[in-house]
Amino acid sequence: MKVNLNHQSNIKLPNSVEILSIGTELLLGNIINTNSRWIAEQLSTLGINHFRQTTVGDNIERISNLILEISQRSSLLITTGGLGPTPDDLTTESIAKAFNSKLYAREDIWTEIKQKLKNKIPNIEESSLKKQSFFPKSASIINNPNGIAPGMIWEPFQGFTVMTFPGVPQELKEMWKQSAHDYIKKNFSDGKIFFSNTLKFAGIGESTISEKINDFLKLDNPTVAPYANIGEVKIRITSKASNEKEAKDLINPIKGKITKLFPNEFFGENDETLASILIKELFKRGESLVFAESCTGGLLSASITETQGSSKVFKGSVIAYKNEIKESLLCVPKNLLIKHGAVSKEVAESMARGVKKNLNSDWAIAISGIAGPDGGSEDKPVGLVFISIISPNNEIKNIKKIFKPFRNRIEIQRLSVNECLNSLRLILLSYKE
Amino acid sequence: MKVNLNHQSNIKLPNSVEILSIGTELLLGNIINTNSRWIAEQLSTLGINHFRQTTVGDNIERISNLILEISQRSSLLITTGGLGPTPDDLTTESIAKAFNSKLYAREDIWTEIKQKLKNKIPNIEESSLKKQSFFPKSASIINNPNGIAPGMIWEPFQGFTVMTFPGVPQELKEMWKQSAHDYIKKNFSDGKIFFSNTLKFAGIGESTISEKINDFLKLDNPTVAPYANIGEVKIRITSKASNEKEAKDLINPIKGKITKLFPNEFFGENDETLASILIKELFKRGESLVFAESCTGGLLSASITETQGSSKVFKGSVIAYKNEIKESLLCVPKNLLIKHGAVSKEVAESMARGVKKNLNSDWAIAISGIAGPDGGSEDKPVGLVFISIISPNNEIKNIKKIFKPFRNRIEIQRLSVNECLNSLRLILLSYKE
Repeated sequence: MKVNLNHQSNIKLPNSVEILSIGTELLLGNIINTNSRWIAEQLSTLGINHFRQTTVGDNIERISNLILEISQRSSLLITTGGLGPTPDDLTTESIAKAFNSKLYAREDIWTEIKQKLKNKIPNIEESSLKKQSFFPKSASIINNPNGIAPGMIWEPFQGFTVMTFPGVPQELKEMWKQSAHDYIKKNFSDGKIFFSNTLKFAGIGESTISEKINDFLKLDNPTVAPYANIGEVKIRITSKASNEKEAKDLINPIKGKITKLFPNEFFGENDETLASILIKELFKRGESLVFAESCTGGLLSASITETQGSSKVFKGSVIAYKNEIKESLLCVPKNLLIKHGAVSKEVAESMARGVKKNLNSDWAIAISGIAGPDGGSEDKPVGLVFISIISPNNEIKNIKKIFKPFRNRIEIQRLSVNECLNSLRLILLSYKE
Repeated sequence: MKVNLNHQSNIKLPNSVEILSIGTELLLGNIINTNSRWIAEQLSTLGINHFRQTTVGDNIERISNLILEISQRSSLLITTGGLGPTPDDLTTESIAKAFNSKLYAREDIWTEIKQKLKNKIPNIEESSLKKQSFFPKSASIINNPNGIAPGMIWEPFQGFTVMTFPGVPQELKEMWKQSAHDYIKKNFSDGKIFFSNTLKFAGIGESTISEKINDFLKLDNPTVAPYANIGEVKIRITSKASNEKEAKDLINPIKGKITKLFPNEFFGENDETLASILIKELFKRGESLVFAESCTGGLLSASITETQGSSKVFKGSVIAYKNEIKESLLCVPKNLLIKHGAVSKEVAESMARGVKKNLNSDWAIAISGIAGPDGGSEDKPVGLVFISIISPNNEIKNIKKIFKPFRNRIEIQRLSVNECLNSLRLILLSYKE
């Protein structure tokens, strides 16, 4: 992972960039700093090096000294946080202080802020909100379409620029996309770009994947890095090149070799998810999908419906948390529930048949299990899950899973959803042949 | 948020602490820095100030210069990352270099490492693993019960101590618990603790809350800080005191005053959520709950069932994504759908009545809306949502919401879920009286 980061230190590079997160809540450990990571990722895709991230609390002396320090070694500083109206929000003031500069009210910005808040705040003219419209004279404004406080681009002296963003991730991201991205690309990129391709895998662990792709991890350009979310492993291949075509030419052979190693586990790229893959595939076939959920309690349905276009294939679900709903809406026979218990292959299968029929669908998935922390027994421990998938021609595939005992309720629900989606994907894959 | 953080900068304080995360993968945005946050939290509970966190890549010059810089302004530096065997792992070397010190092999540590890896590595004597047993002469070792690479506690000169930890969270955490915690408490804590209480609010924006609690934000002990998630605002009150009782005595009067300002919006504390509050309240009343979801597609159900104990009150749901399911499982009359459209007050109300009856419940919530990005029209834009809540005695409360046009699909779904839960909470609150 050495590309682009082994400059000599303590020499001010023409395009050296730093990220500064401002907020005592970060120092107190109240929240995780996801902004730094997001900005780091964005800089990477622009082919821009940054060699330091700093977090500091809401203290004007400390922030302004730090900014002065950074201005002496870097050419661009990106800050997040501290742009709001409260006394804790000190970013703009601290930056001005660092360079002995004054802040001036911008009437147009103030008018805009008042419009955004219209009639919500009594005595708005006297409120502390106004400070969000104060900027150094020569600063340009970064509009904040998703929020109140704008950011700024300011060059207090030649060779050093500071860009400010709010700490609210949705605001930061939109401002970045709408204005900052192009500005940074134009002024701080060396013309080369980083280009990444993320490969996604399901039904395999990170260590198994890492083991198999060990040789690729040593590459310099492109670099190959695996990482894992719950129930999903990703491999990111990143190349640096003059343009996208050149970058892709570096990536594609490696991508080909890696995906070949995992023909069943590799399922998609970049923004694709198990849900989006299934929606696409079922739409192509003109087939519909419904669910009967017990232990996942709606999460399986939600994982499909969070994807745009899901209504093309997804008809609906029955969340049968209580057994009486399994009987009334899914036609699960009472004696089956008594004989085998709700968490059983038999009941899952009956739920699948019931929901397919009652919701008149081509495909159905049913799931019943014990998400915990209560409700487990020696026979049926927490983490035990039965999944039943029924096909258009009424073929049944039953799956039994036991998730590890250290998994908590939410993890068991997420892993169960993943298992459902991936199992259907594998069935559709085999139906193709 | 000024307690303990408004030291004058650039003066070395007796117990000033910093955190340094080392790893190029952090700069590339490949992973989120959860370690910094975890350490920050631990320091908080020890009542210890830290005023800066830095992240740097795997570069020996850069790391050693940075450590020298930190040693001049701080008394304790805690590092994570860079203790492993690869050429990228440079922490110990960089620290030694910063203070012109040499590293010496510790045979006892090397023996231990070999024992931990027994027979797993061929030619282990020649491997790069040995470098993990090299330390400055006067350093103490922090054992790593969950991994291979130990950390160290080293005082290169009087008044500055550095403690090193691996980047793997489980290793860091165990090492912290087993040895670092007591060492830091003994040597760097002033004997006081931080104690926090988080108050949660719904149905109100951060700026409105901030405006009303402006005077509290200026307090020193306890400090008061608001922050916002999507659809939820939190206020954290933090005090510093000799013990928990004293800390609570500082917090409680402020908490009382703040919650009084927002009698309808304040709903819970700390780990409580809208879902957990509803479950508790309905369980107390012995009443059950069901949902009929269209635009939220299962997310409303999932938000209830992710909470332990939800099965005590939640019976199930119908996710009626397609209109035919609204008709077949919720008994919504076809002519109502034709006349008013699925996204209408009339259909939401009919869904609520249908699901309450068919799932035989005390309470029901139905929701129908347009989550987008497609499906909006001039009359019914993306973000329009109708919610209908029906009570045990069949009283209906209808709610119409239009979420802002910049909200994306997932945000509209989440905000809708929040609106449903909070509306039911408010109804239950009014039924109490």
